[in-house]
Amino acid sequence: MTAEPPVAAADRRVLPVALDAMGGDHGAPPNVEGAVLAARAGVSVLLVGDRVKLHAELGKHAGSAALPIEVVEATDVIGMDEHASDVRRRTQASINVATRLVKDGRASAAVSMGHSGATMASALLTLGRIGGVERPAILTHLPARGGFTTLLDVGANADVKAAYYAQWARLASVYLRVVEDRENPTVGLLSIGEEDHKGSALVLEAHALLREQHGRGINFHGNVEGRDIFRNTTDIVVTDGFTGNVVLKLAEGEAKVLFGWVKEALSGSLKTKLGGLLVRGALRGLADRMDPSTYGASLLIGVRGLAFIGHGSADARAVKNALLRAARAHESNLIPRLEAAFQDQAR
Amino acid sequence: MTAEPPVAAADRRVLPVALDAMGGDHGAPPNVEGAVLAARAGVSVLLVGDRVKLHAELGKHAGSAALPIEVVEATDVIGMDEHASDVRRRTQASINVATRLVKDGRASAAVSMGHSGATMASALLTLGRIGGVERPAILTHLPARGGFTTLLDVGANADVKAAYYAQWARLASVYLRVVEDRENPTVGLLSIGEEDHKGSALVLEAHALLREQHGRGINFHGNVEGRDIFRNTTDIVVTDGFTGNVVLKLAEGEAKVLFGWVKEALSGSLKTKLGGLLVRGALRGLADRMDPSTYGASLLIGVRGLAFIGHGSADARAVKNALLRAARAHESNLIPRLEAAFQDQAR
Repeated sequence: MTAEPPVAAADRRVLPVALDAMGGDHGAPPNVEGAVLAARAGVSVLLVGDRVKLHAELGKHAGSAALPIEVVEATDVIGMDEHASDVRRRTQASINVATRLVKDGRASAAVSMGHSGATMASALLTLGRIGGVERPAILTHLPARGGFTTLLDVGANADVKAAYYAQWARLASVYLRVVEDRENPTVGLLSIGEEDHKGSALVLEAHALLREQHGRGINFHGNVEGRDIFRNTTDIVVTDGFTGNVVLKLAEGEAKVLFGWVKEALSGSLKTKLGGLLVRGALRGLADRMDPSTYGASLLIGVRGLAFIGHGSADARAVKNALLRAARAHESNLIPRLEAAFQDQAR
Repeated sequence: MTAEPPVAAADRRVLPVALDAMGGDHGAPPNVEGAVLAARAGVSVLLVGDRVKLHAELGKHAGSAALPIEVVEATDVIGMDEHASDVRRRTQASINVATRLVKDGRASAAVSMGHSGATMASALLTLGRIGGVERPAILTHLPARGGFTTLLDVGANADVKAAYYAQWARLASVYLRVVEDRENPTVGLLSIGEEDHKGSALVLEAHALLREQHGRGINFHGNVEGRDIFRNTTDIVVTDGFTGNVVLKLAEGEAKVLFGWVKEALSGSLKTKLGGLLVRGALRGLADRMDPSTYGASLLIGVRGLAFIGHGSADARAVKNALLRAARAHESNLIPRLEAAFQDQAR
């Protein structure tokens, strides 16, 4: 870092969120706009990136000078098509500066809409793992009947061991209790049949482990199937990062195609067109509910610090929601609570 | 079998389809009704099961005596909650009688809405595998932009080897060419990124194998992601039976929940209710498109004979469509064409 960090003596409760303001498909603009929206909602933000560009972008938003937003210089940025492993040597990359701000206690969380692999690598290298967690996972929410289903891992680990499932179930359970006020959240293991003996060899092994830890920090429901995710059969669905990533992208892709078909169906005859006009508002509400921007970003859970990873295509609303979620997770004292849960278990 | 098979000297082209008429959640009624509908559409059917019950059920359909439907006695039936392995010793179970009719050249295909595991086991034990195929897979269609995407394996093999993917890609390619008149269908490998190096260790190995066989019976497109299934990026998507089963059940479950939400949204205010009335017909057409009954049943591909496996909850329409598909697959000479494709490759 070339500049002195601006929040050296910050109060823990009002610690700002560090935003990798150069990350994502559209660079600074949606990041800065999202930061302005979040700051207006009361969240302090550190914009990490090219100082000149970020100040210029901030200048486009009337009244932004009065908001709790500061700029922290980072001279490099890891592009969407570059290698995640670049994180090791490119110490001045914006994502590395952001995670270091968290490590040094100058920011409450790091948020990035940039290169997902680089964000994971930077968070893991800089912040390390929570004791008892072998591999961090990406935790996300999917809209479901009656609210949302929490799904993990959605892509950090394509190859897994049975022990990971139980660690992730424990992490997600603490998360829902602490951040979402869910009492004793239920955990389902994604499989290909509800019966205990259904699944791959690995899933059967994970099932036995989860069964064994049931009642000790994990409220294990048993196996769930693909259809249960949208039915919200359990609060949490735990799976490997390969299956979880396929699920996430399928769910988003299907919603998009289905809504496209609904739109098409409503523009057929004069009669359906007229009906379409009348129902447009109601359907828009539904489309919003399915929009990934609603949740903003996914949490990299299992590292010793808060790190959120969003879509490269994130808009200002997604950035704002990600910053709000990050601040909420910090206020809930999530990381110390996660650490305590694993210490209790080890006893 | 206690009775003489009724079609001993049948012409190959008009060979009837054997229906496990006792299988499924609702027993004989939807099976018999589906058979009546299929027979009216020109498909001959052998109803396999309890002779008395099936004749009684047939009697409820006016004019059924004049249709090309015959009953073949089977004194036993494997219930939905029993073990698939029972197939070995319960030789008089309806599914075993049905697959034996295929084996003996007295039926063109076996179709069952009953116990999926039992149907797979019976087909594999009775009919054997096509030379060069290590493990049969379940092939199904999912609605997609511009038509449908063919997906396999959707549940026969929870644990797989890389070689299976290439064998399944070859089987599905022949199937689409022969039965659906698709020229040179494209094959996508389901993974967690489009780039060649993205995926689990197993998927990377499968990728290399598919790449190697590209142009020789397999038109390999590369990796596809969850979102590509509904986009119809490739004609065929090949994956392991664990991921495929999760995908299938998620896709069906999501469609159901989304349409439920659309219905709910349309019954809010008086305005949307009125609009809802006007668009009802158009949306019903869409719901039909998403209905699994449209495709009737999935094909167990890789066994030496035609076997179709449907939903336990299948209605008469699904049974009818399954019988029609089975007859079409037989008329297309699918099994000899599949065998030839593997012989060519071995040369």
